[in-house]
Amino acid sequence: MNFKSLLQQKKVKPYILSARFGLEKESQRSKIDGRLATTEHPKVLGNRSYHPYIQTDFSETQIELITPVADSIDEVSRYLSAIQEVAYRSLEKEEILWPLSMPPKLPEKDEEIKIAKLDDFEETLYRQYLAKKYGKRKQMISGIHFNFEYSIDLIQHMFNEQSEFEKIEEFKNTLYMKIARNYLRYRWLITYLFGASPVCEKGYFTEQDKSLNEPVRSIRNSSFGYTNEEVAAVSYASLKNYLEDIHRLVENGILAKEKEFYSPVRLRGGKQISDLCHTGIRYIELRNLDLNPFTSLGIDEDTLRFLHIFLLYMLWTEELETPDEWIMTGNLVNNQIALMHPFQSINLLSEGDRIFREMFEMLDELELVEEKKLVDMYYQQLRAPETTIAGKMWTIIQENSNKELGIIFGSEYQAAILNEPYQLTGFQQMELSTQSFLFDTIQKGIAFEILDEQEQFLKLTHKNHVEYVKNANMTSKDSYIAPLIMQNKTVTKKILADAGFQVPVGEEFISLEQAQQAYLDYENKAFVIKPKTTNYGIGITIFKHGASLADFTLALELAFKEDQVVIIEEFLEGTEYRFFVLDGEVKAILLRIPANVIGDGLHTVEELIIEKNLDPLRGIGHRKPLEAIQLGKLEQLMLKEQALISVSIPKKDQFVYLRKNSNISTGGDSIDVTDEFNESYKKLAVEAVQALGAKICGIDFILSDEKKPINKNSKSYGIIEANFNPAMYMHIYPYKGKGRPLTMEVLKFLYPELNEQ
Amino acid sequence: MNFKSLLQQKKVKPYILSARFGLEKESQRSKIDGRLATTEHPKVLGNRSYHPYIQTDFSETQIELITPVADSIDEVSRYLSAIQEVAYRSLEKEEILWPLSMPPKLPEKDEEIKIAKLDDFEETLYRQYLAKKYGKRKQMISGIHFNFEYSIDLIQHMFNEQSEFEKIEEFKNTLYMKIARNYLRYRWLITYLFGASPVCEKGYFTEQDKSLNEPVRSIRNSSFGYTNEEVAAVSYASLKNYLEDIHRLVENGILAKEKEFYSPVRLRGGKQISDLCHTGIRYIELRNLDLNPFTSLGIDEDTLRFLHIFLLYMLWTEELETPDEWIMTGNLVNNQIALMHPFQSINLLSEGDRIFREMFEMLDELELVEEKKLVDMYYQQLRAPETTIAGKMWTIIQENSNKELGIIFGSEYQAAILNEPYQLTGFQQMELSTQSFLFDTIQKGIAFEILDEQEQFLKLTHKNHVEYVKNANMTSKDSYIAPLIMQNKTVTKKILADAGFQVPVGEEFISLEQAQQAYLDYENKAFVIKPKTTNYGIGITIFKHGASLADFTLALELAFKEDQVVIIEEFLEGTEYRFFVLDGEVKAILLRIPANVIGDGLHTVEELIIEKNLDPLRGIGHRKPLEAIQLGKLEQLMLKEQALISVSIPKKDQFVYLRKNSNISTGGDSIDVTDEFNESYKKLAVEAVQALGAKICGIDFILSDEKKPINKNSKSYGIIEANFNPAMYMHIYPYKGKGRPLTMEVLKFLYPELNEQ
Repeated sequence: MNFKSLLQQKKVKPYILSARFGLEKESQRSKIDGRLATTEHPKVLGNRSYHPYIQTDFSETQIELITPVADSIDEVSRYLSAIQEVAYRSLEKEEILWPLSMPPKLPEKDEEIKIAKLDDFEETLYRQYLAKKYGKRKQMISGIHFNFEYSIDLIQHMFNEQSEFEKIEEFKNTLYMKIARNYLRYRWLITYLFGASPVCEKGYFTEQDKSLNEPVRSIRNSSFGYTNEEVAAVSYASLKNYLEDIHRLVENGILAKEKEFYSPVRLRGGKQISDLCHTGIRYIELRNLDLNPFTSLGIDEDTLRFLHIFLLYMLWTEELETPDEWIMTGNLVNNQIALMHPFQSINLLSEGDRIFREMFEMLDELELVEEKKLVDMYYQQLRAPETTIAGKMWTIIQENSNKELGIIFGSEYQAAILNEPYQLTGFQQMELSTQSFLFDTIQKGIAFEILDEQEQFLKLTHKNHVEYVKNANMTSKDSYIAPLIMQNKTVTKKILADAGFQVPVGEEFISLEQAQQAYLDYENKAFVIKPKTTNYGIGITIFKHGASLADFTLALELAFKEDQVVIIEEFLEGTEYRFFVLDGEVKAILLRIPANVIGDGLHTVEELIIEKNLDPLRGIGHRKPLEAIQLGKLEQLMLKEQALISVSIPKKDQFVYLRKNSNISTGGDSIDVTDEFNESYKKLAVEAVQALGAKICGIDFILSDEKKPINKNSKSYGIIEANFNPAMYMHIYPYKGKGRPLTMEVLKFLYPELNEQ
Repeated sequence: MNFKSLLQQKKVKPYILSARFGLEKESQRSKIDGRLATTEHPKVLGNRSYHPYIQTDFSETQIELITPVADSIDEVSRYLSAIQEVAYRSLEKEEILWPLSMPPKLPEKDEEIKIAKLDDFEETLYRQYLAKKYGKRKQMISGIHFNFEYSIDLIQHMFNEQSEFEKIEEFKNTLYMKIARNYLRYRWLITYLFGASPVCEKGYFTEQDKSLNEPVRSIRNSSFGYTNEEVAAVSYASLKNYLEDIHRLVENGILAKEKEFYSPVRLRGGKQISDLCHTGIRYIELRNLDLNPFTSLGIDEDTLRFLHIFLLYMLWTEELETPDEWIMTGNLVNNQIALMHPFQSINLLSEGDRIFREMFEMLDELELVEEKKLVDMYYQQLRAPETTIAGKMWTIIQENSNKELGIIFGSEYQAAILNEPYQLTGFQQMELSTQSFLFDTIQKGIAFEILDEQEQFLKLTHKNHVEYVKNANMTSKDSYIAPLIMQNKTVTKKILADAGFQVPVGEEFISLEQAQQAYLDYENKAFVIKPKTTNYGIGITIFKHGASLADFTLALELAFKEDQVVIIEEFLEGTEYRFFVLDGEVKAILLRIPANVIGDGLHTVEELIIEKNLDPLRGIGHRKPLEAIQLGKLEQLMLKEQALISVSIPKKDQFVYLRKNSNISTGGDSIDVTDEFNESYKKLAVEAVQALGAKICGIDFILSDEKKPINKNSKSYGIIEANFNPAMYMHIYPYKGKGRPLTMEVLKFLYPELNEQ
């Protein structure tokens, strides 16, 4: 089969780079001083019996992060990044994920290396067998597995352009077998460029292994690493041979299970290797990638992109017609490269040159111009061994130590991840509440799919239980009519009033003249004039003790400047509170205070603002739970009303407001006051939300006497709004007070079975 | 208490006309030939034991229509109009509501007049008692009851301006007692203006009543009408006296129940008269209004407005301090007026002049300028008895007969109401589906409240079961997430595809350049290029057999003119059908055909369009189930494509399309094909809707082989859209085929208990 010519077909070219990707990353939990962690796998990560993203591999300390299948390298990196952040934030504070493939200092006694505590007894038995056969220490090595699948479009189009195969399944098997053979033959280049296990901690090897001459490029990919000697007995000549050979090894008891066969390339179909005969090869799994300590994820996007091109080249380049010999050569040269000193020049320069030359040719032929720069970057490393990952590691290890290397990078990654707990790297384009909800979803092991990123639309799956969620709070639990009621302020007020709750009386007007006629109704009342749609309090006038006709008219004019519909509404004296109600329970109460600074008698308003904005929770553009206070026109006006300018120095403890409106989005402070209210308030809020028929609701109360017990008929409250899409992040990360994990509450509301497990 | 001066207070004036209104209208069901109907109360009207709007009064034929309480005269008329339309459309085709107060020709034998068949045995017994005491025939007279309540604002503000009463309840009782007394004194003017029972059918009266000298103004309001002689024994001096007197009459067995007391003005509080001592007087009920045959409702808005002013005047004008004498005078003069010949000038002109003069003064003082014209219109009738209702009736009766009068107007009202079955007069501002839903709600006796007319937001109440409904199809039965899924076309397609359904593959593009790069993917496919938001097919290009790059680009340019986002989507060959699915069942399947006419070889396209538009179901502006076909620019273009112009004469049976798009809103034909599909199609549609988690959904299929049984994997279908707000009227009133009562289905889905009753 001439794949090279197929790849060059006009109809194939548009799909040349389309593929699907998945990553698995193992690493050892260790203490920040470089010793192996002694704690159990974090309980907060839910149950390993079904967790799709965070598992344990051989030992209790060996966390395995597994991404969903992604359509791009960018996407798969985002997934791994998010999953790793969840794992990190679920660890004990003094634990890190060891960033090296070779494990941190292991306990002297083997018994202290704990096999993963799994529910599945057979899995535990298998690990005991591995421990006995290979030794526990060897099982503690970690790495990256890279799953790679050509897109069905690419394969289909290539298939259409040939006539040798009648069935696409056979064509696909042939294609992946070629890639696998060539990868085994040429993987020495991957070991050279990305090998990253030059040394191990003292005491790692038992005596018989002292022949190892450290430093090398990759202990893990050498004969000292985690391999089966039986690999040589498995032929890659065809899928049939491959399957028969593995089957025989298991039948003869040489391997305990098919999955004990540790090839650097696994052919993947269904769950079991034996499924391959029905499914055909669906994708391949590269297993020879060491953890790169210079990137938090253990593998960077350049590496992934290079691997993608390299795999394309594996299909493009010719192979020898004697497959077993071809692969044996590959194994030999790979071991040679793996065991070389990281600074040493290699003896395969001419083959290396050929590989790169042909890759460049391929990129030219396929018009992949962008990718040439990337490949060139790695080509430069062919003659500069000290610039490869192993080379750079050795430079550091020489001056410090392997352990120091692990500690320095591990703690750096930990700090970066713990520093911004409210966000999920890779998903920052989504709303903070959705990021938080995704965090919880990953943590509890609910499988997620992003159906529409911009629209915050998620699909969740746990066993057979599917839920769709939008904006982290719109779910199947609420009925359709409830949000429609809340969306309509007139209807909301009518229903609440009918049910006996206090709501401000108000009217809408569509012209100045019409509104002026209502003057007599309001002359002596406390009332507000406001545009129907208000933005941060613009156009709102409050009359606490009635108004003259002139002032009334002026206020109307101001409001009509902002909107065609103006509301005159009874003014309720008091403080506004947001009650977050979920399934008949108040989960959080929040007080929002307009943007402000407090004087210290020394600094100017401007300096105080700069100081306050240093809070890591404060940012701009809704990327953080609090917004930075601005000093724009509206803020200057507000200062003026308080007889201040930006360079005034407020007195000690003077409360300086920068805004009238209390929105968090204009620099307001969020203060959790959930525990400060007595039960009567929570009961009232729950009842009001029930009257609206809602399950998830942010309901806003004006309260004038927060300490006094309250009931429906009290005059000390009024309900001013009910929100069907209430912000959650402001409760999770308030400026002051206790954070309330609302997204987790919503997740548990959707999946009550999580509590039972 | 000087109410006159209170009414003139500055703070009172803004509320002077604010009040609440309710109407009850009785009428006899009769055959179109003027005989009393012999059928039972229509079964389709649900159960009289709870029906809030349509009841029977004394006899099985005497329908009573009851409006909800309304805040304006306009509103109460709308209610009555809608309720009457529902009643009319629920009758047998040959039945009408007799438009006169005096009953149509009654059967000769009393036994043939059937007492209303009620579930409540006590109510039946009471009617038997009435029949015995007053005679069945007298109970057959019908009229209008008008419930009137001053707004709480008006009463509160008057109360605030006085100091005589400490409790508002006492103030209110005093106010309504004054109105009642004055109304009883001056009601002769109402009898004069609005009396409308000049004669009765032969055989109505038994012998002893032959002293009646027909014609008169109002038999019903005279001593020959339906009155108690005991009325004289009840004093209106105070609420206390009134209650004590009635109580005594019942105690002494003179009246069977308190409600047997038939005053022209009833004081109303709770359900029973005796409740008044707790509740105080909440409103008054005027019971002396005859059915006006010149208006379909039996009372027109001018009459109601005049009554409103007249009741205001009852409060304004002085009364004599001897209440019993005052009322006795009123009763005497009223009987005199009631029994005068309709053409005869009255002998109360000077009192009449004074009343009108004082009413004009009042209107001047209260600055009610508009109302003066109305009052003047009635003032003109004071000296022109033949222009009053009774006068006009006598003119017609002289030339025809009383029976003819009843038949002529009765059939006219019937025709008008049956002619446009799809609309509900008074609620035409609402969508047709909502009008239809309101119809069903009223018919089945579910109490409704319009929370927001523009937003089609209803509250329904049946016993303790409350439901909120928007647009007649958004309900508590659907979960919130289902419509959000359907609103998002990308998400909808993903979910359907994941569940194994066929959906057209498509991509979105935001620039011409980006879209052009996709050319190779579509070059040889059947595909559509369309703006993301399409209006009636503008900007859409279909390529059934691939496209050249030039045509591809041109189509993209056309689409990008209409929207910033353009979709390229697989084109599915076939015909589009709308499946309406409700709660797991296909309730209707509709085929929509683009606006068209069929040639007859004689008429021009233009003439054919005019002809087709004559269909009473066709209108403009979505006011009717079908839209008139236009002959605008798009239609002319479409003709041109068929080598026609508007004055061409198409051949016999030639199908001429006026539009490409099949929307009903651009003149398309709706054709019900529900019964033409085999079960496999319905099953598939139900499963697809279930995959989306929706209870109410309009799902659009493209089908290429409608006769062949189908399943999920069939290639002969594609799902192109799912609608969470599917139009229902087009299924209820299709152009061709059977109408499907979808709004009734929705109502029964919300209230399954309706089926059980």
